Amino acid sequence: MGRKVAIIGCGMSKFGRRDDKDLMGLLVEASTRSLGDAGVGRKDIDAVYVASMLCGELTHQTAIASALADELLVLPAAAERIENGPASGASAVKNAYAAVASGLYETVLVTGGEKMRHAPGPIVTDLIATITHPTAEYVHGVTLPSLAGMLTRLYMQRYGLEPRHLALVAIKNHNNGLKNPYAHLHRKITLEGIYLEPEAKLNNPPVADPLRMYYCCPITDGAASVVITSAEKAKKFNDTPVTVAGIGHATDTLAVHEREDPAVLKAVQISSQRAFDMAKSEPKAIDVIELHDAFEILELAESEDAGFFEKGTAHKAVEEGVTELDGDLPINPSGGLKARGHPVGATGVAQIVELTWQLRGDAGERQVSGAEQAYALNFGGFGNNVVSFVLKRSD
Amino acid sequence: MGRKVAIIGCGMSKFGRRDDKDLMGLLVEASTRSLGDAGVGRKDIDAVYVASMLCGELTHQTAIASALADELLVLPAAAERIENGPASGASAVKNAYAAVASGLYETVLVTGGEKMRHAPGPIVTDLIATITHPTAEYVHGVTLPSLAGMLTRLYMQRYGLEPRHLALVAIKNHNNGLKNPYAHLHRKITLEGIYLEPEAKLNNPPVADPLRMYYCCPITDGAASVVITSAEKAKKFNDTPVTVAGIGHATDTLAVHEREDPAVLKAVQISSQRAFDMAKSEPKAIDVIELHDAFEILELAESEDAGFFEKGTAHKAVEEGVTELDGDLPINPSGGLKARGHPVGATGVAQIVELTWQLRGDAGERQVSGAEQAYALNFGGFGNNVVSFVLKRSD
Repeated sequence: MGRKVAIIGCGMSKFGRRDDKDLMGLLVEASTRSLGDAGVGRKDIDAVYVASMLCGELTHQTAIASALADELLVLPAAAERIENGPASGASAVKNAYAAVASGLYETVLVTGGEKMRHAPGPIVTDLIATITHPTAEYVHGVTLPSLAGMLTRLYMQRYGLEPRHLALVAIKNHNNGLKNPYAHLHRKITLEGIYLEPEAKLNNPPVADPLRMYYCCPITDGAASVVITSAEKAKKFNDTPVTVAGIGHATDTLAVHEREDPAVLKAVQISSQRAFDMAKSEPKAIDVIELHDAFEILELAESEDAGFFEKGTAHKAVEEGVTELDGDLPINPSGGLKARGHPVGATGVAQIVELTWQLRGDAGERQVSGAEQAYALNFGGFGNNVVSFVLKRSD
Repeated sequence: MGRKVAIIGCGMSKFGRRDDKDLMGLLVEASTRSLGDAGVGRKDIDAVYVASMLCGELTHQTAIASALADELLVLPAAAERIENGPASGASAVKNAYAAVASGLYETVLVTGGEKMRHAPGPIVTDLIATITHPTAEYVHGVTLPSLAGMLTRLYMQRYGLEPRHLALVAIKNHNNGLKNPYAHLHRKITLEGIYLEPEAKLNNPPVADPLRMYYCCPITDGAASVVITSAEKAKKFNDTPVTVAGIGHATDTLAVHEREDPAVLKAVQISSQRAFDMAKSEPKAIDVIELHDAFEILELAESEDAGFFEKGTAHKAVEEGVTELDGDLPINPSGGLKARGHPVGATGVAQIVELTWQLRGDAGERQVSGAEQAYALNFGGFGNNVVSFVLKRSD
């Protein structure tokens, strides 16, 4: 009903341990790159959306979108921050989409970022756990790794998943990350090193049984940014704009135990279906995918519930190499959260950046050849808030 | 360009010291009232926007929109939180507007809330100061009351404002608040009690010279909520929908000292002009106004820069009673932030609630008779992020 919307610019900061910059520095680094890539001037920007989950808690700064607008000299552009837990990035892109599609704005900058590595790990784990149910989960010590451990156990019991499959996903994503200059982890890992004993015992310590360190994403500093505008205007700026063809967003029960079947990610199913319906597309049409593998079990479960594999079979597809960069259905060419890293507010935007590069043919060594349609999934809560995108190479 | 959007329901929690409920309890209280007022069913809600500035810092809960969607049983509705400092509420309504106008959603719930009174005052003042410039203001001890004190001093030097005028604004707003059952402060105040010596010395202690306690809003717990939908659908639910006719949003420099003239609220001027342009209206057409009087000086300055009075003359209009409930241009019939209170994330939504009631003729004892057009201004940062609305009684 609204007008068509396209992505005309994208950029990222280097992800990793970024002691050299504060959060604002990272947001500016990514933003100036996406503005430069889009070729828009400062006066073209009508609004700035910032996605950040924990800027108040970890950086002691609020209303940070106003601060970014000031730093970028795009005043008097509108500015606001979107916080939606680990799905903050996709939520921000969605709202920017709606602002442009409605005609309220013409051109919008969306930048997601998080500065996390300066805080002690247990503090970060606790702050991320503030997305869980406050009385049914949080107060009992539930954390995101513990929920992911339980989901992994369910998959092992029900579908014959073995921890080896998680290792294979991690190895694939680390291999992809080696080809991504922006990735946090540039480290080749092997089954011998992280799975087969005796080395694995030392190299890959338990986090939340059966999850081990290499089956979880790292804590990362970083930012990612896109510039979006109306499809009509996009062609003036960019020869290869990418169309935001479908957006799906769905919630599920906050407490995981309230779900009929905790192994089924219902919000993934619904958000994915909604995105495909809006895009008039289907999983079969997708050439390249970015999923939210904060834990490697999630890449498998999401790829099933989003409609790419039958339930309980994704680990077999991984074993067969289907999701490798040169496989039939490449997943996380960027390295995913596992290797690119997971600066929480940045992640949903970084997924869109990677897919935009893929659809434009700008993904360098990790280019999926001939990609025409792409799918991204940003996963908030423990599956209680999920945003899916279908992007298309513009005609 | 997008389709027309209307407000079909609104509701508020009682504002005040609400030790009886946590933040979620307040959000639910306001939300169930607006859903009930709209007469929509749970399945009608496509998305939930929550405005909250400090839920992470003060309540240790993030991704709170997902939690509200769960509590209200509106799953699998989309959900996200908007944080834009003290302008969070209006930002959330703006994004809900865009989501409906673009056709992405049909019917959206917007609820703003904050739970603040359980925290020590200095902690709250510090957390609110995290909206100021981190290196040019915050680290030097700048707080919002200190900035408001300086603006007041400028007005005194330049325009002949006297503290007595601030007292008159406060007295007006307390009088209006007495007629608002949802207001935090139900307390009649007088010039004798808060301004004339010797009583004033005891009753109205200094906060940031020349500001005294009664020239500042209180710290408040509370929530406010609206339901919006397409104008087309609105008539099915409601005989008296209110049209969101204009929205303007503008930023200014983060650091106040960087402005050409710190007594001029440029973002107020621009956001107001944008809202009037979009609504094809003008200040003269407005019948009732809600302004962001976190400090009473702001009601005066905003009313000037938004276009209702010549610069430097609003205090004279107050003296003449123009802005009283029965004056020519009633400002803050709700009691404003001064008497209704200022649960930060709730405020921008509460302004829209009050004006919706005014335009529907549902404002009880504080009804401005025959109100057809209304204006709201939500003020973030110290004027660096401002959102204006023009609402109209639907035809």
